[in-house]
Amino acid sequence: MSTGPGGGGVAHLSTRAALLDVIRGAGTISRVELTRATGLTGATVSTVVRRLIDDGLVVETGRAESTGGKPAVLLALDPDARFAIGVHLDHSGITYVLANLGGSIVGRWRRPGAGADAPDEVVARVGTELRTFVAQVGVDADRIVGLGVVSPGPLGGSVAGSGGMALAPPPMQAWTDFPLSDALHDATGLPVMLENDATAAAVGEYWSGSREADRSFAAIYMGTGIGAGVMVRGDLYRGASSNTAEIGHICVQVDGPPCWCGSDGCVEALAGPAASVSAARQAGIELPGIGVAEDFAALARAALAGTEPAVQIVEHSARYVAVAVQALANIMDLDLVVLTGPSFAHAGSLYVPAIQQRLVRGFFARASHPVEVVISTHASESAAIGGAALVLQSELAPRASSAVSPVRALPGAPGVRIAQV
Amino acid sequence: MSTGPGGGGVAHLSTRAALLDVIRGAGTISRVELTRATGLTGATVSTVVRRLIDDGLVVETGRAESTGGKPAVLLALDPDARFAIGVHLDHSGITYVLANLGGSIVGRWRRPGAGADAPDEVVARVGTELRTFVAQVGVDADRIVGLGVVSPGPLGGSVAGSGGMALAPPPMQAWTDFPLSDALHDATGLPVMLENDATAAAVGEYWSGSREADRSFAAIYMGTGIGAGVMVRGDLYRGASSNTAEIGHICVQVDGPPCWCGSDGCVEALAGPAASVSAARQAGIELPGIGVAEDFAALARAALAGTEPAVQIVEHSARYVAVAVQALANIMDLDLVVLTGPSFAHAGSLYVPAIQQRLVRGFFARASHPVEVVISTHASESAAIGGAALVLQSELAPRASSAVSPVRALPGAPGVRIAQV
Repeated sequence: MSTGPGGGGVAHLSTRAALLDVIRGAGTISRVELTRATGLTGATVSTVVRRLIDDGLVVETGRAESTGGKPAVLLALDPDARFAIGVHLDHSGITYVLANLGGSIVGRWRRPGAGADAPDEVVARVGTELRTFVAQVGVDADRIVGLGVVSPGPLGGSVAGSGGMALAPPPMQAWTDFPLSDALHDATGLPVMLENDATAAAVGEYWSGSREADRSFAAIYMGTGIGAGVMVRGDLYRGASSNTAEIGHICVQVDGPPCWCGSDGCVEALAGPAASVSAARQAGIELPGIGVAEDFAALARAALAGTEPAVQIVEHSARYVAVAVQALANIMDLDLVVLTGPSFAHAGSLYVPAIQQRLVRGFFARASHPVEVVISTHASESAAIGGAALVLQSELAPRASSAVSPVRALPGAPGVRIAQV
Repeated sequence: MSTGPGGGGVAHLSTRAALLDVIRGAGTISRVELTRATGLTGATVSTVVRRLIDDGLVVETGRAESTGGKPAVLLALDPDARFAIGVHLDHSGITYVLANLGGSIVGRWRRPGAGADAPDEVVARVGTELRTFVAQVGVDADRIVGLGVVSPGPLGGSVAGSGGMALAPPPMQAWTDFPLSDALHDATGLPVMLENDATAAAVGEYWSGSREADRSFAAIYMGTGIGAGVMVRGDLYRGASSNTAEIGHICVQVDGPPCWCGSDGCVEALAGPAASVSAARQAGIELPGIGVAEDFAALARAALAGTEPAVQIVEHSARYVAVAVQALANIMDLDLVVLTGPSFAHAGSLYVPAIQQRLVRGFFARASHPVEVVISTHASESAAIGGAALVLQSELAPRASSAVSPVRALPGAPGVRIAQV
C-alpha cells in the first residue's frame, strides 16, 4: 500500500466496505436493517457480518427494543478494532498522533523537527520514535493499519513509483526527490500514505469536527509556509495531482519579490512567517533565532501584547494573507474558512479581522451566502490528525481514485479527545 | 423544472437514466450486454428499454455479428430524439444555439445584446426570437426539452424561489435581482436552467471537445468581464453556490483601484476588457464606441496589427490576466487551460505568451505535471453551447445536486458542427 499522493488503488467500494460504512453511519443497526439499507441479500449480509465480527471490526452490542417478535441483535463498529498513526514531518517539529476507528485521538507526541539532519537519519529516528510512541500509548501493534505521513508540498515529482516532496521549501531542500514513502515503509514495516500538510489539515479539521459536514470549507494552513486544503460537502478536492489550494504561491504583486518556488510576488514571499520574521529582525525585534516557527511564535506573542513594530509587521502579513483567502473563497466558492496549523495556533486572532474585513467587501458570492471565518481549536495538530484519518478512511472504505475523495466525519466524534503520552 | 443555479431536484440516478447513460457511452449495445453492464435483471432491462424505444430516445439499429446463436439486436441513442436551446444573454449580444442529444449543434443565431433595454422587454424579445429560431432550424418544438440560460454571475441572491443575477456587472445593473428564470419560463413555456456564463463555457468546451475528458481543466472566460469554470475529469466544480472560479475578482494589487464588485485591486478592474478600452481611449486610440465588447475587439485588432500603444495596453492586461490564471492553476491544480469567450475569440493569441510565461515559472505543481494553454476553437459560443449541454445532461442523467456535477462528453462528438440559420 505504499502509494504516491492521493493513495488510491482499489477500484470499487467492496461489499465489506459498504457494510462497514452503513454500520458506522448508523451507530448501531440490526442485520435486517442492514439488508434494507444496502439492498444486499440477507445471506450476503450474514456472511459478511460474520467475517467482520471474526476480524474484530464489528461487535454485537445488545438487542433492539422488541416490535413484537424476537428482538434483533444490534451491531456496532468496535472503535478500538483498528488504529492509524499520523506523522506530521516538518522542519521545526515532528508530531505523532494515534487515532482509532471511532475518530478519537488516543495519543499524541511532539518531537524535535527534521532541522538540518539528513533525510535518512530523520527517517531512522521516526522509526524508533514510532515504536516508543506505540508502546507508551499501549496499543496492540497488530491493530495499527498504516501510517499517514504529512509533509510540505508539492508532492510527487520524479521519484518513480514512490512519493516524496517534489519541490521542498527552503529549510527542507535536502528532501527534494527523497523517496519518503518507501523509506518510511522500510523503517516501520507499515503501509504508508503520503499527503500534503495543508490537504491533511483539511481532512483533520473535518474528521475531528462535525460542523463542516455539509459545507464548502477550506482549512488555511500556516506553518512555516502558507497553504490550504478544500473539502466540499465531505469530498476532498484533489485536482490533477493532489497539489491543490496552494494559496501561498499566488501572486499578489506583479513584479514583486522573488519566491523560493521560482515565481515572484507570491503571498508567502511577501507575508509568510519567514518574511514576517525577517522583517521583525530588521526592525530590531529580539527573536529566539532557532527557527522560523519559533521566531514567528515569538513575534506573534509580541504583537498580541501590543508591542510595536510587531503589531505593524503582523498586520502587514494579515493584509496579504487576507487577499489569498479572498482568492481561494472566490475561486472555490467557500462558506467556511478554518485557520489552522502551528503559526495560526499562535497568531490566528491577529489574522481574523483582516480576513473578515476583506471578505465583507470582496467575497463575490456574498449576495448568495455568507462566508464564516473561525480559528481551529486544534490548530497545531490538525495535519497529523488528517494523516491518521486518511489511513483509517482508506481502510474503512477504499474507493476509486478520483479528483474528489469522500471523507466522512465519524458519528460520535464531535471533537478531539487528546490523551497525552 | 424552473430552478436556481445548479439545477438539481431528482435525488438518484434512475434506472432509466442509468440505462441511457450506458447506451450513450457504448454507442451501440445489445440488451444482454446492458444486463451485464448494469447488473440489472434481464426483465428490468427489457421493460425499461421498451419504454425508451416508445419514447423515441432509443432505436434498434441492426444486429451484432453472430457468435453462434441468433445475433442480438443492437440499441443506440437517437441523437435527434431530444433537443435543447442554449441562450447566452449578455449586454453586447444574445447567442442562441440548438443542440441535439448526440452532442451536435444543429443551429445557431446571434442577435443584438440586452444593451440598455429593460429586462422585461429583453425577455419578451427572447421569447419571440426563440420561436423564430426554432422554426427556421426546422426542429419539432415538442422535442425541445428546455432552455439553458447563461448570464454573467454571481447568480442566486434574494429572488426567492427563482434564479437571477445577484450582483450584475455595470452594463446590466437593471438585471440585479430580476427573476430571470421565471420570466423566461413564462415567455417561452419551456423549463429553464440558469447558469453562470463562465461555468457554462467550461461545460460547452467539454461537451463539444473530447480532449478534456480525463483532465483537470479550466475554461478562462473573457467577455466584457473575466471569469472561469473548472471541470475535473468530467465533474463540474460547483462549490457552495455555483459561483466558482471568479478569477476576475481576486486581488492582484493591495490598495489597488476600486472594482464595481465592491472590492479593490481586482484583476477585472486593472486588466479586464473595460479597463483596457478605457486605457486605449485615454491613449487616443479611436474605437467604435458602441460597447465594451466591440471596442475591445477593435483594440485587439490594432494590437494584432502591431500598432502602439495598443500592443502595450493589451500586454499590460495580459500580464494581470496571467496572474489570475496562475492563481487558478495553483488553487485547482489544473493541467489544461482553455481560453474562451468573445474577447478571447479576438485577442486569445495576444494573451497566450504571457500566460505560458508565468506558468513556466509559477505553476507550483510543475514538478508533478505540466499545464497546457490553448485557445478555444469556438470561443464566441462556448457559453451558449454549455447552456444547451446542461439541459440535455439533466434530461439524460439527472443526479443528486452536489458540489461536483458529472457531465459526459458524448461519443461521436469530436467537435462542434455548426449549421447557420
